Parts: sequence; structure tokens; C-alpha cells
Amino acid sequence: MRTDLCDVFGIDLPIFAFTPSEHVAAAVSRAGGLGVLGAVRFNDPDELDRTLTWLDDNTDGKPYGVDVVMPMKVPTEGTSTDLGSLIPPEHLSFVDRTLQQLGVPPLPEGEGREGVLGWLHSVARSHVDVALAHRPVLIANALGSPPVDVIEQAHAAGVKVAALAGAAKHALSHVANGVDVIIAQGYEAGGHTGEIASMVLTPEIVDAVGPDVPVLGAGGIGSGRQVAASLALGAQGVWTGSVWLTTTEYQELNSNRAMTEALVRAGSGDTVRTRIYTGKPARLLKTKWTQAWEAEDAPAPLPMPLQNLLVAGAHNRMSAHDDPDTISMPVGQIVGRMNEVRPVAEVMAGLVEEFEQAAARIADVAGR
Amino acid sequence: MRTDLCDVFGIDLPIFAFTPSEHVAAAVSRAGGLGVLGAVRFNDPDELDRTLTWLDDNTDGKPYGVDVVMPMKVPTEGTSTDLGSLIPPEHLSFVDRTLQQLGVPPLPEGEGREGVLGWLHSVARSHVDVALAHRPVLIANALGSPPVDVIEQAHAAGVKVAALAGAAKHALSHVANGVDVIIAQGYEAGGHTGEIASMVLTPEIVDAVGPDVPVLGAGGIGSGRQVAASLALGAQGVWTGSVWLTTTEYQELNSNRAMTEALVRAGSGDTVRTRIYTGKPARLLKTKWTQAWEAEDAPAPLPMPLQNLLVAGAHNRMSAHDDPDTISMPVGQIVGRMNEVRPVAEVMAGLVEEFEQAAARIADVAGR
Repeated sequence: MRTDLCDVFGIDLPIFAFTPSEHVAAAVSRAGGLGVLGAVRFNDPDELDRTLTWLDDNTDGKPYGVDVVMPMKVPTEGTSTDLGSLIPPEHLSFVDRTLQQLGVPPLPEGEGREGVLGWLHSVARSHVDVALAHRPVLIANALGSPPVDVIEQAHAAGVKVAALAGAAKHALSHVANGVDVIIAQGYEAGGHTGEIASMVLTPEIVDAVGPDVPVLGAGGIGSGRQVAASLALGAQGVWTGSVWLTTTEYQELNSNRAMTEALVRAGSGDTVRTRIYTGKPARLLKTKWTQAWEAEDAPAPLPMPLQNLLVAGAHNRMSAHDDPDTISMPVGQIVGRMNEVRPVAEVMAGLVEEFEQAAARIADVAGR
Repeated sequence: MRTDLCDVFGIDLPIFAFTPSEHVAAAVSRAGGLGVLGAVRFNDPDELDRTLTWLDDNTDGKPYGVDVVMPMKVPTEGTSTDLGSLIPPEHLSFVDRTLQQLGVPPLPEGEGREGVLGWLHSVARSHVDVALAHRPVLIANALGSPPVDVIEQAHAAGVKVAALAGAAKHALSHVANGVDVIIAQGYEAGGHTGEIASMVLTPEIVDAVGPDVPVLGAGGIGSGRQVAASLALGAQGVWTGSVWLTTTEYQELNSNRAMTEALVRAGSGDTVRTRIYTGKPARLLKTKWTQAWEAEDAPAPLPMPLQNLLVAGAHNRMSAHDDPDTISMPVGQIVGRMNEVRPVAEVMAGLVEEFEQAAARIADVAGR
């Protein structure tokens, strides 16, 4: 399974794996794909620095990428304390009341954990600075084009830039800003996602940006048949995410057994697209937490970055509580196929093997 | 482009085309696919009978199918007058007020047209009776399994039965009822549709029903790349619908030029999934009419079959008014690719040619 992108990035397989876990990223890169470490969870740039040093040392010299969350325009900025004052009291009381109703206790004394600051522009910029001091081959941005000076900074370091797009017009704007690779993120994807499904979105973006801009298909990809489908639609590679959450390597990051249980048992219909995670529409696992936000008395979610600050403490409390019914987890519709915990290398081998079977079937249908 | 389904139905191409137009259905069948005539618009069984006689005479002896709209369980039944009494007055006044606000005049005196009764169980049964007196090779049902006795009636006549499914559990239930072919209808499809996108739904249903039950991929298919993708996902053929609305042949049925204009100019993001057409979620073109139903003062749509009776008169008025901004039209996200009016034969040839290009690309990626 080789496309031109393999040469661009020095990889064996055009399979890009977004993951918050350096263990998963390293295993994907070692298996021939491109592991892309999500930086948003690193509030402390030094911790990201140490983690990338670990990646440098554990990828057998293979390439990897780093994913940041950076809006094109600088939004409301400040420390969590400053921003916290912008959160309406009725939102805070709704969160407290909901956690109480769901039986999620407060964190033990002294274990108050900070919210995720990676959504803040200044923190995302520090992630780019730290990353470029290592050897990533790709900086990907979950929110579309990063600011043009960040793209130029990456290019000056010889690093390609990828950006997610949920519509052709966004892809065109990313290309105009200098982005090298477009990730066509379909409706079925986990996390931030638009309304157009991969089947329609991928060829639309491929045609819009033209043959000189490689497109990765994203959304709904967790088997080799889906890899073949995405490449048939015109993608040069695939961008995967959810499927790595139930790998053996991911469990090293994830101390939350309830989350793994919830993912393994969920069906493809058990997700919901909602603004409650960050303020922008993102697909999450459907749980009592997401249902509470759909109730009539629930407030409207706040804009980014306030919504994530609002719920970050709740996420920590639910994570510590470890109940599969009350978790907050971005995941795509492919969760219906994530039914066991397997090593990354096994998942990768399965993707390749099933892709080859699908390719043989297509060749047969075409009478080749 | 051949799969086992071609032998089952005596067709050259595993491309199934749902259409309310006998002109489109005949042209698809003549071009080697399977034209499937939507019967729901025929209030008068004799008119369906005459139309199927026309199809018998205009398909060069090639096979065709008939599509009915029949719930498994017999719902509220009766004439439009009986059922009309179940429609709340506030719904009627909302429809009147909305049409007035949108500048849609009443129909000219004496042109009051009846609503569509094909949604009624008794009418759908008469469609099956009439169809089986002709030579269809397939009865498809847009609402899942038809009643078991209807499946047996079709089988006794040597006719296969297909049913739409938006989730694997529904597909399994259809198979248990005796349905022969499952149409995996993804979120991106026009008309009645579930929430799971084709990329995830098609392989899930293929795996659920097993190798003995052929699956057609539906939703988002309007180009040969999408045909290849659907077959890569495990489908044995594709079920298309929207793409035929902008064919030359369709214009013979459609006197509404505004509708064609609206479809040609719409982008993939210009659809909405809503209950306002039939009471069940269906994807429609986004227009001022669909937006009016999203306003705060809009009532909740009524259950099937009442909602269609409620809006049928409004549909007739909007159709006569011929304004591209105020139409009510089921269509999928593929509408973004329907940018010109072309003959059916040209669309079919394009599907085949682009499928072959996609197959060649996949073979290249696989190093075959």
C-alpha cells in the first residue's frame, strides 16, 4: 500500500494516526505509518518537550508528527483565572448539579487538576515552538489553518503543515494560507467535525484543491475496507484517530478503565455531535453526561475556549470516578468496530491485509 | 464492472437507480443498470398500471424494479379526509402562515390537487399488487421490511425484495423477515435516512448479514469514485437516487424548472435532515421552507402519515409557484456534485469510466 505521500514523509504506509499517546504514536511510526502526537493535553511545554524526546528515542528513527489546536484568528486569551470570570454562574451551577445527579464525587482534597490549556492560542504556539526543536515531519492543526506566520515557521524548519477541513471552501482557504496537506474530516469522525460525510466530502475536497495538494481522508476509518474506500475517493492517505483508543499501547496513558469499557461496548449509533466539549461541534461518545446537556434545562454551550474551561474540571472528576456511563470522550462512529483491546502493530497489519483484500475485490469487479 | 448481483438480476452493471420517473428508470435499465420506479406518487393504481405498461414497452426487454413505501406494521389508516381530522389546527395555520410569509400563492381555482396517498398502507399494498402483474425483478421498500405476507407474495411471483436499513440491527431484522437484498442507507443519503454515515454503515451491515445476503451501498453516491468506494466497503452494488434528479429524462416528469435550478446550484452543505416531509427523519434540500420549520414558533412535525398529509397541499402550491428558494425536495449531500442537466446514458457512462479509473488507482496503490 504505497502512494506518493509515502515518499513525501518517508513512510511505508499512507496511514496517519492522530493520538494523544506517545506510546501509540511511536508504535504506529515503527509499524510504517505516521504517528501524530496530540499536543493539546500538555499544559506545560517542558512536559511536551520531554515527551518528544521520548518519541525521538523510541521510533527507531522513523518519522512522526505533532498535532496542535490553534485557531487562525487569536481568540479570547488569558489564564484560566482570567477566562474563568467570563463563565456565567448558571453554567457553573448546571455542571455542579449535573455531576451531583450523576453521582460523580468531587476530586479528593489536594487533587484539583488544572483544565486543559492547550486550547489557548499562546499555549498552542508554545507547542509549535517546542515541536520544531525536535524532528517532526508534520505539524497538523485540528482547527484548520494555523496563522500564516506559524505555517512559515514550520516551512522554514522543513516541516510540512496539515489542516483539517470539513468543507471544500475551508480546504481552499487553507491551501491559500500555505497549508501543504488537507485532512478531509467527514461528519462521522470523532472530535471536531462538520456535517458532510466522508463519501461526499473527500472527492469534493480532492477536486477543489487539485492534484498538487495531497488529501487525507478522515472520518469512519478503522478497517482496511475503509482505507480502500477513502483512497478510491481520491485521498492519498488516511487520517485515523478513534481506532487507536482501544489499543494496548493507549492503555499506558489511559488509567481510566471505564473509558476503555465504554468504547469497547459502544455501537456505531452511540455517538453524538455536540458543542459541549469545546464550544465547536465535536463528536463524542453518547453517555449520561452528553444526555444531560440535551435536557430542556441545560444551558447552551459557551464559545471556544470558555466551554472547555467550564467542563475541564468535570472531565477530571468523571475520569477519577471511572464509571463507563459518565465519561466525556471524543470518538467517531467507527467506535462500533472497536470491540477489543489490541496492540497497535496488530491493528496496522489488519488495515494492510484488509486493504489488500478490498483491492483484490475491486480488481475482480473491474475485470482487471 | 460486474458483481454476482448482475447475474441475480440479469443486469450488466450493479447500479440501482431509484427514481419517481419512468423515463429515468427506463433509460437506466436500457443503459445496463436497474431502474427502480418509485410508486409513492401514484394515488391511482390504474395510473401506476399504465406507467408500468409503458416501462414494459420502453426498456428493450431489460429488467426494472418498483419501489414502494410500506411500514412493517399497519399504521393509522384511512382516507385523507378521515386522517385530516387528526391534524391539529395550529399545524394547519402554521403551514398557511408560512406559505403566505414566503409569498407562495394558493393554487388557481379548480386546481386543488390531492396529497400523496402512497404513504398509506392500503395504497402501498395496491402498488405491490399492480407491480406484480407486470415484470419487475425487484420490489424495494423505502421503510424497511414490508409485511411478511407481502414478501411471500413477491417471492411467489419470482420477484426479489429489497429493504432500506440505516442500522445493522434493522438489516438483521429485514433478513429474518425474508428480505433478499439490503440497501445500507447512510446518513448522507436523500430521503429517509439514519445517523450513521455510509463509510461506517456499509461494512457494518455487510458483516452483520453475512456473505449470503447482498448489500447495496446507498448515500453519497454520484460518481464512479463513490461506486468504487462503496464496493470497497463490501457492497455488491450501489443504490442511487438524487443523482437522477438533474438528468434530461427527469425533466419530462418535472415541470418545475425552479427545482432543477435549486438542485444545480446547491452545494453539499445545502441539505438538512428533518421530520417535516413525512414525520420520519429525511434529508431535504435546505430552503426557506425547511428553515421556517426550524424557527422557534414552528410546531413539531406530526407522525407518519399525518405530516405528509399536512404538507402535501403546501408542496403542490410551492411546486406551482416555481421559486427555487421555496421548494420541498428530498435530496442527498451528493447534490453538491449535481451541477448540470445531463442525459441518463451520459451519467451512467461517467460512473463506469470513473469507477475504472478508481480501480486502476487502487490497483496501483496495492502494487497489483
